[in-house]
Amino acid sequence: MTNDGDEVSVQPARTMKPLTSKLGWSTPDRIEVYGHDLPRDIIGTIDLAGMAYLGIQGRMPTASEQRVFNAIMVTLVEHGQTPSTITARLTYAGAPEALQAAVAAGLLGLGTVFVGSMEGAARILQQKLADAPRPFDTDRMAEELVADLKAKRQIIPGLGHQKHKPVDPRAVRLLEVAEEEGLYGPHCQLMSAVAVVAQRESKKSLPLNATGAIGAIASDMGIRWEIVRGLGVIARSVGIVVHLLEDMETPLGIEIWNRVDDEVTNSQLQR
Amino acid sequence: MTNDGDEVSVQPARTMKPLTSKLGWSTPDRIEVYGHDLPRDIIGTIDLAGMAYLGIQGRMPTASEQRVFNAIMVTLVEHGQTPSTITARLTYAGAPEALQAAVAAGLLGLGTVFVGSMEGAARILQQKLADAPRPFDTDRMAEELVADLKAKRQIIPGLGHQKHKPVDPRAVRLLEVAEEEGLYGPHCQLMSAVAVVAQRESKKSLPLNATGAIGAIASDMGIRWEIVRGLGVIARSVGIVVHLLEDMETPLGIEIWNRVDDEVTNSQLQR
Amino acid sequence: MTNDGDEVSVQPARTMKPLTSKLGWSTPDRIEVYGHDLPRDIIGTIDLAGMAYLGIQGRMPTASEQRVFNAIMVTLVEHGQTPSTITARLTYAGAPEALQAAVAAGLLGLGTVFVGSMEGAARILQQKLADAPRPFDTDRMAEELVADLKAKRQIIPGLGHQKHKPVDPRAVRLLEVAEEEGLYGPHCQLMSAVAVVAQRESKKSLPLNATGAIGAIASDMGIRWEIVRGLGVIARSVGIVVHLLEDMETPLGIEIWNRVDDEVTNSQLQR
Amino acid sequence: MTNDGDEVSVQPARTMKPLTSKLGWSTPDRIEVYGHDLPRDIIGTIDLAGMAYLGIQGRMPTASEQRVFNAIMVTLVEHGQTPSTITARLTYAGAPEALQAAVAAGLLGLGTVFVGSMEGAARILQQKLADAPRPFDTDRMAEELVADLKAKRQIIPGLGHQKHKPVDPRAVRLLEVAEEEGLYGPHCQLMSAVAVVAQRESKKSLPLNATGAIGAIASDMGIRWEIVRGLGVIARSVGIVVHLLEDMETPLGIEIWNRVDDEVTNSQLQR
Repeated sequence: MTNDGDEVSVQPARTMKPLTSKLGWSTPDRIEVYGHDLPRDIIGTIDLAGMAYLGIQGRMPTASEQRVFNAIMVTLVEHGQTPSTITARLTYAGAPEALQAAVAAGLLGLGTVFVGSMEGAARILQQKLADAPRPFDTDRMAEELVADLKAKRQIIPGLGHQKHKPVDPRAVRLLEVAEEEGLYGPHCQLMSAVAVVAQRESKKSLPLNATGAIGAIASDMGIRWEIVRGLGVIARSVGIVVHLLEDMETPLGIEIWNRVDDEVTNSQLQR
Repeated sequence: MTNDGDEVSVQPARTMKPLTSKLGWSTPDRIEVYGHDLPRDIIGTIDLAGMAYLGIQGRMPTASEQRVFNAIMVTLVEHGQTPSTITARLTYAGAPEALQAAVAAGLLGLGTVFVGSMEGAARILQQKLADAPRPFDTDRMAEELVADLKAKRQIIPGLGHQKHKPVDPRAVRLLEVAEEEGLYGPHCQLMSAVAVVAQRESKKSLPLNATGAIGAIASDMGIRWEIVRGLGVIARSVGIVVHLLEDMETPLGIEIWNRVDDEVTNSQLQR
Repeated sequence: MTNDGDEVSVQPARTMKPLTSKLGWSTPDRIEVYGHDLPRDIIGTIDLAGMAYLGIQGRMPTASEQRVFNAIMVTLVEHGQTPSTITARLTYAGAPEALQAAVAAGLLGLGTVFVGSMEGAARILQQKLADAPRPFDTDRMAEELVADLKAKRQIIPGLGHQKHKPVDPRAVRLLEVAEEEGLYGPHCQLMSAVAVVAQRESKKSLPLNATGAIGAIASDMGIRWEIVRGLGVIARSVGIVVHLLEDMETPLGIEIWNRVDDEVTNSQLQR
Repeated sequence: MTNDGDEVSVQPARTMKPLTSKLGWSTPDRIEVYGHDLPRDIIGTIDLAGMAYLGIQGRMPTASEQRVFNAIMVTLVEHGQTPSTITARLTYAGAPEALQAAVAAGLLGLGTVFVGSMEGAARILQQKLADAPRPFDTDRMAEELVADLKAKRQIIPGLGHQKHKPVDPRAVRLLEVAEEEGLYGPHCQLMSAVAVVAQRESKKSLPLNATGAIGAIASDMGIRWEIVRGLGVIARSVGIVVHLLEDMETPLGIEIWNRVDDEVTNSQLQR
C-alpha cells in the first residue's frame, strides 16, 4: 500500500437511476415475457420468428407479417462458406468444449462490410422517407438519393452482387412475397426505384440484392434501421450452428489452417 | 534476418484433404441451401425454426415436429435480466457501432453453468438409451441413472430451479405440447422418471425444469446432444437483440457500471 | 436435392492470389518470429512490450522507446470496475471452463466510446501533421483543429475526464516520461496545444487525459493510428485476466446479476 | 398485459452481498492500481509483463522473476499462421471498424486443444506436488503420473509436437532461462522427468514442448494453474494485433474465403 496518509473519503453520493425493463419477469409460479404468459400463451402457439417479431415490434405479427418476416429470416441463414462460417469452424477446432464461443466468433465479422448493407439500405430509405412530403414521389427521391451518395462518393447499399447478376433471385422472391402479403410499401418502392436509377447511371450491372430487399421490407414493416443488423445476426446464428454440426463429422478448420500455414511458410523459406 | 546460412527448404509436401460441405452452394442464377432451391422452395414457405430444423436434421420437419421445435425455441428466447443480457448491454455501451459484438459477448457465457444443463440432460438420456435393451424399462433406468450420478457426486442436469418451485410451468407445458403432437418418446419418459426418483431420494424440491424438458424432447426428435447447446445459443441471440433494441431507449449498462464502481471504490476507500 | 436437370458446371477459374506473411515461420529445428530466431534471440532477451513493439514497428525498440512504450501499456491495464471487467466476470460465471471467452467478452466493448478516444486522438494528430508545412506551427494548427471539430460538432478526442479534474495525473506523468526519453515530439506538442485552446474556448475543465497523451505519444513513436486501439486491447487483456483471477476467490458476477434482476423484476411487478 | 388479477407482489428481500475488489480505485486526484500509485510508482517504472505479474501475484516481481516471466510471455506471442490468427483476419475483413472484435474472435479458439495443454501441464504438476511427501522424489512421481494418465487413456499435456522433433528448442531455452535465474524448481524437475518416462514408455518422439515448459515454470513461480491459460490469452492478443496490422497492408482473409468457397462449391456442383 502506498497510501501515505492522503485523506481519502467516500465518493460523493450519486443519484441512482432506476433499472427498468419491460421484456420479462417471473415469480415462482408465473413467467411473463414480452407482455404475455410464456407457458400459457407463447409455448406451443408462436413460432420463433414470431417471437422475434413480438420482441422487436412489441406486438404479435399478423399472419402476413409473420410470413414476410420468416421469409426475410430464412434468406439470411445460410450462404455457403463465408468468413463467418470458416471462423466458427476454426474456433471450434481449438475449443470444441465451448460451442457458444465458436458461434460468437462467427458472428463477430458481421460488421459494415458483409451484413452492414442491410442496415445501410434501411437507414437511407427510412431517413429519406421520414421527412418526405406526401404523397411520396419515389422516382424523384431515388434520383436525389443516388445523386447524393454519388456526391459523397459513397456506394449505394443493397445494390450489386459479386455472383448473382444480372438478377439476385432472392431479392426478386422476397419482394414478391412482400407484395403477395400486402406489405410492399413505400420503402420497397423507393429501393426499387433507386436500383433503376443506379443501373442507368453506372452502366454496370447493379441488381437489387437480398440485403437491399430485406432493408426495404423491414423498413416497410416499421422495424427501425438501428436494429436491422440484428436480424442478420439472429439468422446467421442458425446457419453457424448448422455448420458446426456438420464440422463434427467433416471438419474443415484444421485443413484450412494447414494449407494457409504451408503456403505462408514456403513463401518465407523461399525468399 | 538472422538466417545465418542455415539450409532451409520448402516444407515437405502434405497430402491435402478435400474441403467439402453439403450445406449450400450457388452459381450466378441458382442458390441451393440444405438441398433445396432457396428462392423457390424456402423463401415464403418455411419458417425460421423450420429452417433450423432442416439444417440440423437434414430434412423438412413434419407439422408436429415444427410445432414442438418452435415450442422449444421460443421457451429459450427471453429470461429477463441474465448475465448474458447484462453483458450485451454493457458491451453495447462501449461499442454501439458493433451490434454484432454485443450479441456475441452476450452469447459467450452460455457455457456449462447456465445453458449446459440442456446439453447435459440430452447427453445422459441419449447415452443411457443408446445401449438399453428393448423394450425400455425407464423406471429401472431412472434408478440406475440417479444412483450413478450420486456415486459420481454429480448433479442431475435438468432438475431443480432457484425460483420455479415446486413446478416449472414451462417444463409442464413443453411436455404437454410434445404429447399433443405424438413426440413424447422414451427420452421424455426417462427424464420424467428421473425427476420422480431424484425427488424421492433427495427429499428436496427438484422439479423437472425447462432445460430438462428441452433436453428430453430434443432427444426424442433425434437431435444429437452435442448440438443441443446450439439451440439455446440461437434462441438467446433473438433475446439479446431485443434487449439491445430496448437499451437504445432505456440504457442500463452505464448505470450498472456506475453502481458497481461506486460500491467497490467506497469499499476500498474505507478500508 | 432439387437440381431438376439444370446444367451446372464448375465455377470459372479464379486467379489465386498468393498468401504471404512476414511475421513468422518454422521448420523442425528453427523458429523465426518477426525476423529473429525466437529461442536464441528473443526468449530471455526481450520483454513483452518490446515484443509488441518489434511486431508493430518491425524493429527492436531503443531503450528509450522501450521505457515509453511500457509506460503507455501499463497505464492502460487496470481502471477498476469497468463495463469491460464486469462483462468478463459475468461471462466467467456462466462459462468458467472457457476463460478465453470471458476475456474476449470483456474486450468486445472496447469500441468508439471507451477506448476509441485514443485512436481518435492519434488520427486527428497524424492527419493534421501529415500535410502540414514545416517547421510546424502547432499553436496555429491547434486553433484550426479545435475550430474544425467545433464546426463539425464533434468532440475533441483525448480531452476531458469524468473524474480526474482539473488534471489527469496519468497524462502528466506519461508526457513527462516521453520528455525524459526525448520522445516528446510534434504530436505531443500539438495535443498539448489543442488542450490549451479547447480549455480556453469551452470554459469547461477539459484536461488532457490519458488517452490523449497516449494517442499523441504513440503517434510520435510512428505508430499508425489505425492500430492504436490495439494497444488498449492488449493492455486490457492483462487487466481482465487479473480480474478473472480475483473473481475465482471473490465472485462479483452472480451478485450483480441478482441485484439487477431483483430491481427490474420489482419495477415490473409494481406497475 | 395478461395479468388476469393474479396477486403479484414485490420479490422477497434478498440479503445483498457486498461488491468488493482490491484491484484498483480512484478519486479525482489519485489513482491506485494493484496497491500502488499508478502515475507515481508504475508509469515509467514497471514493464508490461511486470504489471501482469504484479496483478496476478499481488507483488512486484524480482529481477529474476521478471526476466523469466517475460521469457514465458514472448514465447507465446507469435506462432505464424494459426486458427487464431486466420480467424482474426477473416473477422477483420467483415468488420474493420471493430478491431477489438477481430482480436476477440481470434482469442476464442484458445481452448482445450491448442492452449489448454499449458493449463493441463500446470494442473497435473501442481496437483501431484501439492500432497507429495518431502523431500520430493520426482522420478517416482513421474512414473506414477505417466501410469495414471495411461490408465485413464489421457494424453500427457506438455509433451510432443507436430513439427518440432526430436526437440522443441523453445522448451530447451525456457528451462535454461529459468535455471539461469534460479527458478528451476520441483515442477520443472517433475515435468522433465515425466518427459523422460513418457518417451521411454511410448517409444515415440515426445519432446517436452513449449507449453509443458511454460506450465512447469509458471507453477514454480507460484502461479495457480487455473489462470495459466490467461498467460496465453494475453500473449496471443499481442500476436493477433500484429497480424491485423499486417493484414491492413496484405489482407489474407478474402483470399482464404474465396478459395474455400470455390473448392466447396465445385465439390457440390460435381456430385
